[in-house]
Amino acid sequence: MSEQLVEEGTDPGKIAVIHIEGVLQAGAGGAFGGGYNHELLLDQLDHAAEDGQVDGIVLRVNTPGGGVVESDEIHDKVVEVREEFGKDVYVSMGAQAASGGYYVAAPADRIFANGQTITGSLGVIMQSFNVSELAEDLGISDQTIKSGEFKDIMSATREMTEEDEEILQSIVDDAYSQFVGVIDEGREDLSRSEVEELADGRIYTGGQAVENGLVDDLGNMDDTIEAMKENLGSNPNVIEYEQGFNFGSFVSVQMD
Amino acid sequence: MSEQLVEEGTDPGKIAVIHIEGVLQAGAGGAFGGGYNHELLLDQLDHAAEDGQVDGIVLRVNTPGGGVVESDEIHDKVVEVREEFGKDVYVSMGAQAASGGYYVAAPADRIFANGQTITGSLGVIMQSFNVSELAEDLGISDQTIKSGEFKDIMSATREMTEEDEEILQSIVDDAYSQFVGVIDEGREDLSRSEVEELADGRIYTGGQAVENGLVDDLGNMDDTIEAMKENLGSNPNVIEYEQGFNFGSFVSVQMD
Amino acid sequence: MSEQLVEEGTDPGKIAVIHIEGVLQAGAGGAFGGGYNHELLLDQLDHAAEDGQVDGIVLRVNTPGGGVVESDEIHDKVVEVREEFGKDVYVSMGAQAASGGYYVAAPADRIFANGQTITGSLGVIMQSFNVSELAEDLGISDQTIKSGEFKDIMSATREMTEEDEEILQSIVDDAYSQFVGVIDEGREDLSRSEVEELADGRIYTGGQAVENGLVDDLGNMDDTIEAMKENLGSNPNVIEYEQGFNFGSFVSVQMD
Amino acid sequence: MSEQLVEEGTDPGKIAVIHIEGVLQAGAGGAFGGGYNHELLLDQLDHAAEDGQVDGIVLRVNTPGGGVVESDEIHDKVVEVREEFGKDVYVSMGAQAASGGYYVAAPADRIFANGQTITGSLGVIMQSFNVSELAEDLGISDQTIKSGEFKDIMSATREMTEEDEEILQSIVDDAYSQFVGVIDEGREDLSRSEVEELADGRIYTGGQAVENGLVDDLGNMDDTIEAMKENLGSNPNVIEYEQGFNFGSFVSVQMD
Amino acid sequence: MSEQLVEEGTDPGKIAVIHIEGVLQAGAGGAFGGGYNHELLLDQLDHAAEDGQVDGIVLRVNTPGGGVVESDEIHDKVVEVREEFGKDVYVSMGAQAASGGYYVAAPADRIFANGQTITGSLGVIMQSFNVSELAEDLGISDQTIKSGEFKDIMSATREMTEEDEEILQSIVDDAYSQFVGVIDEGREDLSRSEVEELADGRIYTGGQAVENGLVDDLGNMDDTIEAMKENLGSNPNVIEYEQGFNFGSFVSVQMD
Amino acid sequence: MSEQLVEEGTDPGKIAVIHIEGVLQAGAGGAFGGGYNHELLLDQLDHAAEDGQVDGIVLRVNTPGGGVVESDEIHDKVVEVREEFGKDVYVSMGAQAASGGYYVAAPADRIFANGQTITGSLGVIMQSFNVSELAEDLGISDQTIKSGEFKDIMSATREMTEEDEEILQSIVDDAYSQFVGVIDEGREDLSRSEVEELADGRIYTGGQAVENGLVDDLGNMDDTIEAMKENLGSNPNVIEYEQGFNFGSFVSVQMD
Amino acid sequence: MSEQLVEEGTDPGKIAVIHIEGVLQAGAGGAFGGGYNHELLLDQLDHAAEDGQVDGIVLRVNTPGGGVVESDEIHDKVVEVREEFGKDVYVSMGAQAASGGYYVAAPADRIFANGQTITGSLGVIMQSFNVSELAEDLGISDQTIKSGEFKDIMSATREMTEEDEEILQSIVDDAYSQFVGVIDEGREDLSRSEVEELADGRIYTGGQAVENGLVDDLGNMDDTIEAMKENLGSNPNVIEYEQGFNFGSFVSVQMD
Amino acid sequence: MSEQLVEEGTDPGKIAVIHIEGVLQAGAGGAFGGGYNHELLLDQLDHAAEDGQVDGIVLRVNTPGGGVVESDEIHDKVVEVREEFGKDVYVSMGAQAASGGYYVAAPADRIFANGQTITGSLGVIMQSFNVSELAEDLGISDQTIKSGEFKDIMSATREMTEEDEEILQSIVDDAYSQFVGVIDEGREDLSRSEVEELADGRIYTGGQAVENGLVDDLGNMDDTIEAMKENLGSNPNVIEYEQGFNFGSFVSVQMD
Repeated sequence: MSEQLVEEGTDPGKIAVIHIEGVLQAGAGGAFGGGYNHELLLDQLDHAAEDGQVDGIVLRVNTPGGGVVESDEIHDKVVEVREEFGKDVYVSMGAQAASGGYYVAAPADRIFANGQTITGSLGVIMQSFNVSELAEDLGISDQTIKSGEFKDIMSATREMTEEDEEILQSIVDDAYSQFVGVIDEGREDLSRSEVEELADGRIYTGGQAVENGLVDDLGNMDDTIEAMKENLGSNPNVIEYEQGFNFGSFVSVQMD
Repeated sequence: MSEQLVEEGTDPGKIAVIHIEGVLQAGAGGAFGGGYNHELLLDQLDHAAEDGQVDGIVLRVNTPGGGVVESDEIHDKVVEVREEFGKDVYVSMGAQAASGGYYVAAPADRIFANGQTITGSLGVIMQSFNVSELAEDLGISDQTIKSGEFKDIMSATREMTEEDEEILQSIVDDAYSQFVGVIDEGREDLSRSEVEELADGRIYTGGQAVENGLVDDLGNMDDTIEAMKENLGSNPNVIEYEQGFNFGSFVSVQMD
Repeated sequence: MSEQLVEEGTDPGKIAVIHIEGVLQAGAGGAFGGGYNHELLLDQLDHAAEDGQVDGIVLRVNTPGGGVVESDEIHDKVVEVREEFGKDVYVSMGAQAASGGYYVAAPADRIFANGQTITGSLGVIMQSFNVSELAEDLGISDQTIKSGEFKDIMSATREMTEEDEEILQSIVDDAYSQFVGVIDEGREDLSRSEVEELADGRIYTGGQAVENGLVDDLGNMDDTIEAMKENLGSNPNVIEYEQGFNFGSFVSVQMD
Repeated sequence: MSEQLVEEGTDPGKIAVIHIEGVLQAGAGGAFGGGYNHELLLDQLDHAAEDGQVDGIVLRVNTPGGGVVESDEIHDKVVEVREEFGKDVYVSMGAQAASGGYYVAAPADRIFANGQTITGSLGVIMQSFNVSELAEDLGISDQTIKSGEFKDIMSATREMTEEDEEILQSIVDDAYSQFVGVIDEGREDLSRSEVEELADGRIYTGGQAVENGLVDDLGNMDDTIEAMKENLGSNPNVIEYEQGFNFGSFVSVQMD
Repeated sequence: MSEQLVEEGTDPGKIAVIHIEGVLQAGAGGAFGGGYNHELLLDQLDHAAEDGQVDGIVLRVNTPGGGVVESDEIHDKVVEVREEFGKDVYVSMGAQAASGGYYVAAPADRIFANGQTITGSLGVIMQSFNVSELAEDLGISDQTIKSGEFKDIMSATREMTEEDEEILQSIVDDAYSQFVGVIDEGREDLSRSEVEELADGRIYTGGQAVENGLVDDLGNMDDTIEAMKENLGSNPNVIEYEQGFNFGSFVSVQMD
Repeated sequence: MSEQLVEEGTDPGKIAVIHIEGVLQAGAGGAFGGGYNHELLLDQLDHAAEDGQVDGIVLRVNTPGGGVVESDEIHDKVVEVREEFGKDVYVSMGAQAASGGYYVAAPADRIFANGQTITGSLGVIMQSFNVSELAEDLGISDQTIKSGEFKDIMSATREMTEEDEEILQSIVDDAYSQFVGVIDEGREDLSRSEVEELADGRIYTGGQAVENGLVDDLGNMDDTIEAMKENLGSNPNVIEYEQGFNFGSFVSVQMD
Repeated sequence: MSEQLVEEGTDPGKIAVIHIEGVLQAGAGGAFGGGYNHELLLDQLDHAAEDGQVDGIVLRVNTPGGGVVESDEIHDKVVEVREEFGKDVYVSMGAQAASGGYYVAAPADRIFANGQTITGSLGVIMQSFNVSELAEDLGISDQTIKSGEFKDIMSATREMTEEDEEILQSIVDDAYSQFVGVIDEGREDLSRSEVEELADGRIYTGGQAVENGLVDDLGNMDDTIEAMKENLGSNPNVIEYEQGFNFGSFVSVQMD
Repeated sequence: MSEQLVEEGTDPGKIAVIHIEGVLQAGAGGAFGGGYNHELLLDQLDHAAEDGQVDGIVLRVNTPGGGVVESDEIHDKVVEVREEFGKDVYVSMGAQAASGGYYVAAPADRIFANGQTITGSLGVIMQSFNVSELAEDLGISDQTIKSGEFKDIMSATREMTEEDEEILQSIVDDAYSQFVGVIDEGREDLSRSEVEELADGRIYTGGQAVENGLVDDLGNMDDTIEAMKENLGSNPNVIEYEQGFNFGSFVSVQMD
């Protein structure tokens, strides 16, 4: 894992900058998630945790979110870095750090956002389209042979039943509850009920988020690095790990 | 089969990590299943089974399922690894391990899932479209000369008869019964009737699956490897086998 | 013809594994049949037959069928291998071995299938579309000058007459009769009338096929090779011949 | 013209195998006839005729037909090989040897076909589309200035007149009469009236063709080569001439 | 201009074979006429005329026709070869030698055709489409500012007037009269009135053309070369000049 | 500027052949005019004028016309060659030399055409389409803010006013008048009123053009070169300058 | 960071020219923002700030705007250059410097614009499309399972509620207020209320902007550099940093 | 900047020819303006101005116009060449030199045009399309949240208000006034009111432009160079600077 010097320091040690950009979806998840490399990101976090020279980590988060499991795996790594390796993690939010983008930032020691960063969108959603009427209009019918009532749940060609909705809603609720828990744990000053109130899916600007407690400070990348240096009480080198090309983070349908 | 060191250990021996990702469909099955390499996966399982240095195997499963036969061939290899070679197999479920993805995990010694992993979808389905009405509307008619009543079963241009349905349902039922048997055998704490109740096609989160007995523990990849080490009572190297590029696991119509 | 060692043995001799995958159609048959190499397959069968070191042949069949003539040419080679060269041929069916896929397997000494293999679809079919109504609606008419009444049989732009149907049905019946004969001859325990009853075009799972006598045993590729070794009473090397890339076996309209 | 050894023999001399595959249309005939190389095929026939070492020629015919003139030029070469060079020519029909495919086979000493080969389709056809109604519906009109009444015969934008039909029918009849003559001459056991009865455009299976006298024997390529060896009373090498890639023989509108 | 030996002779001298294939249209005439190289063809004729070793020339004509001027330029070269250089020119017609294809053959000493060659189509035609109604339906109108009444003759967006028709008909008549003259001069046994009767645009088979005097003999390429040898009373080498690739002679709208 | 020897002569000096082919439009004029190289053509004319060894110039004109300015620039060069350098210029018209193609030929000493050359089309035209009705039907409206009444003259989305027409007609009339002047000057035997009568936009065949005085002689390229030699009283080498590829001269909308 | 000499000077020191061109959007923001390199631009500003030889900086701004956060990050860098490094920054506006393009220019010491530069467009906008009616017409319905009322805010398939509007409007207002603040601070001669009056989203020409106080002087790039030299009282070298290719700044949907 | 010798002279010094071709739009302005290189053109003018050997400059203008700012920047350079460097600038108009094409020519010492050059089109225009009705018909509605009334001015999905029109008209008027001023200043013999009368957007031929005073002389490129030589009283070398490929000057929607 080759390092790139971003800013030369005057003291020993290193601050590692790690970018979390694009839709958070593992390689197997779809042709369009190719720009975000889940394995590589986890490796970078491991590497920074284990490198004795790294004193603090700055995560640059610029993502609309992504898969629930991927978000959770990143989250757990961030927790591990802090709790097992005792290193401080600061987050600098870019243009957007919404949904899963907030989820991965929640456990950080301190979160910085630009006043206009789009964050929030806390919660979970499953979206699909039902084209059964269109198919009928065209004269196409679906022929399905199945072993169980729910084997074709979320099929685009049959109406969703009440029972379908209950099953799917329970999954969404389950994920939502975990989401709320992660924020509640990460943000010490917010009670669970306060989190639940905030987590109705709406988006916030960085400025609003500072007011409601989801973000600690207004500031850009430079401010975040500066704050980390103050926090460490030293001025070490700032480095990044090399990354691949980030393409197409817009085009993706997913559950997040 | 070249190995890649994932995590250095302190004891002799190896834990082999094998990825089961993408739609499970043999190369001859379609242009879009190209990312998943069935032959290669079976070879990796053989290789890990026969390599005397490998003490335990961790399967990382991240797939919506795939072909029934392919799933069964992987399943049988997993059983063989455990019964003939006496090696423990742990499963770590990723974002999804549904349908065939659960089928191949069922015989493992222990199954870990993230709380939000999508699993379940237990059962079998055959889907096709009937465009006879559309064809009629367009002024296109089908001219079929055949040797037997059922030679054009599932043809897109004729209505499905009751007898057709019976034939296809019997095939689905047959596969379903095998599916249930595989789970029943793999999951010792579930009775056959309990399995049948769970296997109505619905999806479960990892959290729900722990409750209903389909999964043993909540945990990510790291937790699974850690548990395997504890189980082995040693801290050996963790290795992976090299794989090709995984493309397009989304676009596929199949029976699973 | 270069060989690849699949499984090392302890005894002299060889078991040759030959793959019959994709739509069975000669190169001249269409742009989409390119993945299946008819000439190469026949050469491989010749080669295995004539190679004194080869003691037994295992055919891995994974195909929805294909051309009647191509199927017949493969079939004849299999018969020749057994009768003229006195070598045993075992078949291992993959995800599907239907129609022409069963035809080529029929003469084998022993047929193995997975319980969920799709087989059967015994019989012959000719399909074409009649667009004369569509053409009329669009204001396009066909201008045909021909030398005989049937020169434009199966033309997409005229209605099929009763006499047309008789001619085409006689061809289908002829091929069907040959199909039934091939099965009757290959499967000793089935009478001709039993074959005719089974050959109504319907598909069977491997499990159903064992029951009705079309398949001998349930088992995957490994079981088939193991059975061949037992049959030979030795444990020789298992080899394959190198093959090209198999693309697009799905997209094809044909008579099978 | 480089040769490829197909089957090693034990006697001096050679049997030359020549493939007639794809739509029989000279290079200038259209972009889609590119796979079939008319000049090359005639050269191969010349070469085999003049090569003193070649004792017999086997034509592998697998074509739906093609241009009348091209078929006739091949036909004449086959006749020349037999009459001027005194060499025997055997034909092995593949999946199809219909229309022009039969025309070129007719003069052979002996014709073999698979029981399911599609042959027949004896006769000639001219097809075009009239889109004048469509054009009128769209508001497009044709502006034609011509020197003679029939200069725009078969134009897609005017109705065919009775006189047009007579002219075109006379051409089709002329070609038909030549077709019948070629078969009558080639097949000694068939009278002209018998040929005319068979040549109503319908297709035959190889089996039907043996019964009605259009084909001599049922058999595949191997049987044909074997019969040629018997005929020669020797077992010489079997060779082929190298050919280019055969693409797209399906897509072609033509007179055949 | 490199020569290729087609057939080895036993006497000194040469017979030059020149191919006239594809739509006869000069390079500047359109993207689709690219396969036919007008300049190169004229050069080949010049070359053969001036090469003292060439005793006779065989033109292989396989074209549906083309531009009137191009046809005339080839025609004049053929006349020049015969009259100024005193060399005999024989024509061998391929699948088609219609319209301009006949025009260039007319001055030859002797014309051979296959019985099924499509020839005739003697005359001239101008075709264009009027889309003014379509444009009006779509709500598009043409805004034309012009200097003279006929500057937009044959415009696709205005109706053709009677005067337009007269102008265009006079051009067609002029070209037609030249066409008839060329045939009358070339074919000594046909009177002008006989030519005019034949030249009503209809197509003839080679067989019909022998009967009506447009062609001298039935015969293929070989027969034509053989006849030339007889004519010369010697058996010289037969050579061709190298040519480029002939693409897409079908797709072209033109005046011929 | 490299020369190519077209015809070897016996006397000193040179005749330069220069091709004027394709739509006459400068490189900046549009993507489709790329085949015609205006700068290069003017350079060739300069070069031939200044080369002391060149005794006469033959222009091969094969173009439907093009831009008025480009035509005029070529025309002026031709005049300059004749008047300033005192060299004779002969024109050989190919398949078409209409509109601007005639304009550039007008000043030549002698013009040859094939009897069927399409020439004439003397005059100027501006064509555009008005889609305002179509836009209105689709629900699209044009929002134009402009500084002067005529800034959007010829806009596709507003009706042409009478004043617009007058402005444009005056431009067309101006160009027309120049066109007539050029012909009147170039063709000594035609009075201005005769030219005006001929220049009503209609097309003429080469034959008609000889009769009406627009062309001097019937003849092809060879005849033109021959005439130039006679004119010069010598038989010098005939050369051409090398040119680029000529693509797509058909596809172009322009004012000419 | 390699420098390019733009204009040679006579004094020591350097003026750095930095181009801000295209849509201001970070790499992760979309496939179409690829031409603008946010990281690189910030690096160039850092580099110029820290390079002791650089005495003054000229920003060439030619952009319609872009992301709010990106604009703010550039803005902060410009402020830092002036306040922390004490270097003067002059802006030269190109064809457009609107919205975010003005935002980044606001803190400069002096702003030059061409009289026709399009600037202004001060403010923020969020645009999306609602296709719910279209979907309904087509027979497609949306199936959404969500955890909170606002999780699908701005969804294209449901109507925007009043509450949605309030949330989004508050975000727009927040960003607007920051925008006004940035201008108020940057332009000393404008009061906040004056800024608010100007910032109603309308566009201004450079001329109008000089009058209303948003721009200091009319002038092109040369004038800006000249003014900077005067300001510095010296004539140093003028340099640029090398940049990549700028593509597609037009095609982008964004919030700015 | 490499020079190309266009015409060899007999005296010392140089005349530099600079081409202004294609749509005048800076690289950042759109994908289709790529052929015109604004930076390069300004550099060429600088270079010619500063090169002591260059005595006079000839601009070859062939453009329909382009961006107002770009036109103005070229204009200012031309003025600078004349006033600061005291060099004469002559313009030779090609097929078109309209709108911005005239703007850049206005300050020249002398303007030459072909009689048919299209010039004029003096003034400014802004065009956009309103598709709100179409969107409504399709069932698509626009959801816009904005900070100020005019933030979505010229939006394609809302009707233009009277106030919008006033704002935009003021911009157009501003640019128009500058346009008129530039002409008034450049053309000494025209009063401002005369210019205003001419600048109503209409196009003129070169001939009309000479009459109304916008152009000085009729003449092509050669005449312009000749006149410059006379003006200089010497016959120096004529050179050009090397340029890139000019593509697609037709396809562009812009404000000019």
